[in-house]
Amino acid sequence: MSKLTHFDASGQAHMVDVGDKAETKRIAVAGGSIRMQPETLATIESGDTKKGDVLGIARIAAIQGSKRTSELIPLCHPIPLTKVGVVFTIDHALNSIHCLVTTETVGRTGVEMEALAATSIALLTIYDMCKAMDRGMIISDIRLLEKQGGKSGNWQAS
Amino acid sequence: MSKLTHFDASGQAHMVDVGDKAETKRIAVAGGSIRMQPETLATIESGDTKKGDVLGIARIAAIQGSKRTSELIPLCHPIPLTKVGVVFTIDHALNSIHCLVTTETVGRTGVEMEALAATSIALLTIYDMCKAMDRGMIISDIRLLEKQGGKSGNWQAS
Amino acid sequence: MSKLTHFDASGQAHMVDVGDKAETKRIAVAGGSIRMQPETLATIESGDTKKGDVLGIARIAAIQGSKRTSELIPLCHPIPLTKVGVVFTIDHALNSIHCLVTTETVGRTGVEMEALAATSIALLTIYDMCKAMDRGMIISDIRLLEKQGGKSGNWQAS
Amino acid sequence: MSKLTHFDASGQAHMVDVGDKAETKRIAVAGGSIRMQPETLATIESGDTKKGDVLGIARIAAIQGSKRTSELIPLCHPIPLTKVGVVFTIDHALNSIHCLVTTETVGRTGVEMEALAATSIALLTIYDMCKAMDRGMIISDIRLLEKQGGKSGNWQAS
Amino acid sequence: MSKLTHFDASGQAHMVDVGDKAETKRIAVAGGSIRMQPETLATIESGDTKKGDVLGIARIAAIQGSKRTSELIPLCHPIPLTKVGVVFTIDHALNSIHCLVTTETVGRTGVEMEALAATSIALLTIYDMCKAMDRGMIISDIRLLEKQGGKSGNWQAS
Amino acid sequence: MSKLTHFDASGQAHMVDVGDKAETKRIAVAGGSIRMQPETLATIESGDTKKGDVLGIARIAAIQGSKRTSELIPLCHPIPLTKVGVVFTIDHALNSIHCLVTTETVGRTGVEMEALAATSIALLTIYDMCKAMDRGMIISDIRLLEKQGGKSGNWQAS
Repeated sequence: MSKLTHFDASGQAHMVDVGDKAETKRIAVAGGSIRMQPETLATIESGDTKKGDVLGIARIAAIQGSKRTSELIPLCHPIPLTKVGVVFTIDHALNSIHCLVTTETVGRTGVEMEALAATSIALLTIYDMCKAMDRGMIISDIRLLEKQGGKSGNWQAS
Repeated sequence: MSKLTHFDASGQAHMVDVGDKAETKRIAVAGGSIRMQPETLATIESGDTKKGDVLGIARIAAIQGSKRTSELIPLCHPIPLTKVGVVFTIDHALNSIHCLVTTETVGRTGVEMEALAATSIALLTIYDMCKAMDRGMIISDIRLLEKQGGKSGNWQAS
Repeated sequence: MSKLTHFDASGQAHMVDVGDKAETKRIAVAGGSIRMQPETLATIESGDTKKGDVLGIARIAAIQGSKRTSELIPLCHPIPLTKVGVVFTIDHALNSIHCLVTTETVGRTGVEMEALAATSIALLTIYDMCKAMDRGMIISDIRLLEKQGGKSGNWQAS
Repeated sequence: MSKLTHFDASGQAHMVDVGDKAETKRIAVAGGSIRMQPETLATIESGDTKKGDVLGIARIAAIQGSKRTSELIPLCHPIPLTKVGVVFTIDHALNSIHCLVTTETVGRTGVEMEALAATSIALLTIYDMCKAMDRGMIISDIRLLEKQGGKSGNWQAS
Repeated sequence: MSKLTHFDASGQAHMVDVGDKAETKRIAVAGGSIRMQPETLATIESGDTKKGDVLGIARIAAIQGSKRTSELIPLCHPIPLTKVGVVFTIDHALNSIHCLVTTETVGRTGVEMEALAATSIALLTIYDMCKAMDRGMIISDIRLLEKQGGKSGNWQAS
Repeated sequence: MSKLTHFDASGQAHMVDVGDKAETKRIAVAGGSIRMQPETLATIESGDTKKGDVLGIARIAAIQGSKRTSELIPLCHPIPLTKVGVVFTIDHALNSIHCLVTTETVGRTGVEMEALAATSIALLTIYDMCKAMDRGMIISDIRLLEKQGGKSGNWQAS
């Protein structure tokens, strides 16, 4: 039997049946980073509502994107998110911005993909807004950090 | 003056005026990777239309996602793509799948974000389809590799 | 502390946590108007399925738009609407069409924005369909008229 | 003959044929206002990236919404916008925020609806973000202020 | 009284109130076919992940499309699907491919339209992918085969 | 070599390169039918803006759906439609409604899929609006009737 639950016994993709799963609280936390030139990071840091708020816009893009996850990822179930939070941290040693997204729902399946998609879109938005001065920025380490709830229980990245 | 073209002189975000730019052929190439357990990679490799075609589905997700880029990235211009190609390469040494996306248009602005968004969505889709067996997969090195066309000319990642 | 619940303690936007709120029946009623030339109003009034049904199309646009509210308003929660009703009233004294939208759900948060968005889209659609003969139409008085349900209880516009 | 171009000779709605119109530069300017309690206005004014940037988020919502106009307004043509700008002005005398949106394209039909839709969405977003403290806010005077380009030439609101 | 529940007593379209209906398990099965030249069918049958997997792509399109049903069908309620399955069967006698879609939810209204929309999109996708070699393909017999759950109970096509 | 242009030489799906094709006028005409009980047809025929305008709503759904075609059909290029027309004809002998959709663009690729998708969505909308009184309606004969323009020239269904 395939270990990939998104395929049925004959190898065909399907949207997995979650109808018999209980509606429980589900939480997911994902993270990722974007590395850039020091000058680019300094420009972003100096930004605010007067000079150009890159991170504020990336945060909105992440929240809006999280709501579209099931449109983007073919076999994702549509899930009514009950909370989305986005935190950016600046790492001067690595010339990086780290993005941490927490998603929650009360539903029949998890919200890991919503957290991961929101993280990706936040980082892509930072890239978009700074690409005129730094095309070589690199997005890395997008991964699930933690999940809670559901039949498979809690999980934390090692 | 801000080096961030997505903000006007007073620091407010805007969709940059490209109305006076010529319609020229624009090409962008982006890449990225997802690292996983050897067993996960083996399962994906053994997949096909009979057993579950993870990469075929990720490719479709990437192409469909590229068309939604301007909905996801707030200050992106809507662009009618004329070509999208997605290539996956397997790296057994690193237990990784690499994704390479080429996007093209004949338009007034570049298609870098379309290539980067498609790459991200391809890798997220692989994560989604395999997460039941490997939650710790990590997406990395999403970056622009090359762009051609437009006023700023050609560019290649170093 | 900010009185704006869409920001957290540090002033960053988030999608507010509603996961612990009960699923209860929520109702919202919103209204708005569009003022036009008497001749424009007469043309709309004479319309029907034979001559061009402006209000019928605006009603459909309002219902369809209500379902997209969480895509349009960044911090709105996705909400499965259980009812949407749209009523148009003609005010000859003011050369206006008034639109009244009622939205309902059984959910963890209110449907005020869905009613307001649907009202706006109905009025914009009327504008679109008549703009060739009357570019000066003005949309006004879009506001919440009533809400029921939820922790904050009932509310009526004064 | 109907003066409503969105209907054909038999009164049926259609997307008007613009295939024979020339691709020319088109500009539209729309405006609108939201009136609120003085305390609400003061809270918005004190906002910034540290305390909660209501207008920054409304601006992004407007830009993103402008790109979805043809999905919201049934008979609108899809138009690749080449520029979107959003300016907010505060009117203390009226306890209002005024929103001014400029949209541009190089295309076969105008971008008036894009400017009007973006204005509406900006004002709805302000409502959403402040509704917890002021449910009675009223959106008014959404209207076209100016258009340039196209067969019908230039137009300015009187 | 109208037998068409999508209209109110005055003949105006509305999204029917389902707020008082119980959340129960709902299942719908729909089917449809596409008829083509024998050579086209042979080309599709020979396809796989190496030569071009038409049916695999049509299956993904169907699943993704089912999630967008309430955006496409004006008076449909948004419904969080809990399962979508798509099966293709080849009929050599009729040179046809038959598509069977099963949709499920736990909700207040049925998922018949989701099954029918997914069926239609699957067949349209097959048409799209083969149209370069066979423009005359015909899509037929799209219909509901079965529904379970809800107040109106079970139903099967005769 | 594959005759299926949506696959590259190695059998992988791609969005075909149309960047070098000329922008020319493209027209497509598609048709399809829905067969129902005589009583259902009579109810639709008696409908108007006072009693419930099924066909008016189906027409709007078709036009709106045509604009979303590239989101629904994975390998379709995004195309700015310049015209969409929808005509319904009633066939009492067959208890059917026939839908005819004409789509046009000035672009690098054809609009056949837009015409076919619009036809399908029109017929699905009729089904949705009448399903409470007639679940057994059948949608058939969705097919391309004619195309003009482009490298492959004109084509008419035999």
